[in-house]
Amino acid sequence: MRGALSPRSAWPAPGDDCPIARAFDRIGTKSAFVILREAFYGAGRFDEFVERTGMSEPVVATRLKELTDEGLLSRTPYQEPGQRRRNGYQLTEKGSELLPVMVAMMNWGDRWLFPDGARVQLTHSGCGSPVHTELRCGAGHSIATGQLDLTQAGQPQ
Amino acid sequence: MRGALSPRSAWPAPGDDCPIARAFDRIGTKSAFVILREAFYGAGRFDEFVERTGMSEPVVATRLKELTDEGLLSRTPYQEPGQRRRNGYQLTEKGSELLPVMVAMMNWGDRWLFPDGARVQLTHSGCGSPVHTELRCGAGHSIATGQLDLTQAGQPQ
Repeated sequence: MRGALSPRSAWPAPGDDCPIARAFDRIGTKSAFVILREAFYGAGRFDEFVERTGMSEPVVATRLKELTDEGLLSRTPYQEPGQRRRNGYQLTEKGSELLPVMVAMMNWGDRWLFPDGARVQLTHSGCGSPVHTELRCGAGHSIATGQLDLTQAGQPQ
Repeated sequence: MRGALSPRSAWPAPGDDCPIARAFDRIGTKSAFVILREAFYGAGRFDEFVERTGMSEPVVATRLKELTDEGLLSRTPYQEPGQRRRNGYQLTEKGSELLPVMVAMMNWGDRWLFPDGARVQLTHSGCGSPVHTELRCGAGHSIATGQLDLTQAGQPQ
């Protein structure tokens, strides 16, 4: 990556203005990621999250509350016959837009951490081909390594 | 996301075969992410990582060792005139391939956590347009929400 950011040390405190660090503060626990993963896989009810994640009820309840407070999940009450009213959880637009992060981590984990081959596969429902993340620019070009510039917003490159 | 994974609860323990969870175990501390971010931004020397991350020397040393042991960074000794021999750190291929994860987190953080606008911008050095991550399949199709299938590898879809 090339950049107009040198000297990097002249920037403001890195934690304050870095979207990666800030994102990490919001979603950076493994249990939050696992809850979100299950939401992408279709979980919606409290007991589904508990069963599918293998985490304890208090941990799941805490994470669901945090992710709801953060606006990544929304809560909708539902009621099954003869049961009390409960909350269901769905990904919001903010939560749904984490899909590229999840897919990028999944691609990387499959390639580098599963030497015997991936256990699950994401495919395009239109054609059945495996799905991956790509870097593209607004003009539609696919970005190869070394073709990225990093600039402070509003500054000339 | 559609999937042939129901009932999800019939899978093996989720932590064991999930590339996202496994990736999180390897790179899932904020300090590791921040070190990797600086490596993408071009940091190489121990003192650069300390200065740019604002983290303490022992924390930086521990993370550099872990990331090297994990194969994300490689160590190359260097020596400046009149100084003792030191180690420099570079991203390996395994480390470099985390770029889509970083860019996806950066895009999401910019959009959702910086309501006043992004502070830094990634642009294509060829044309200057902003860079983002896209989901594409092996046949080159751009993937919209709802066009993803999740299957266990080796199973019919």
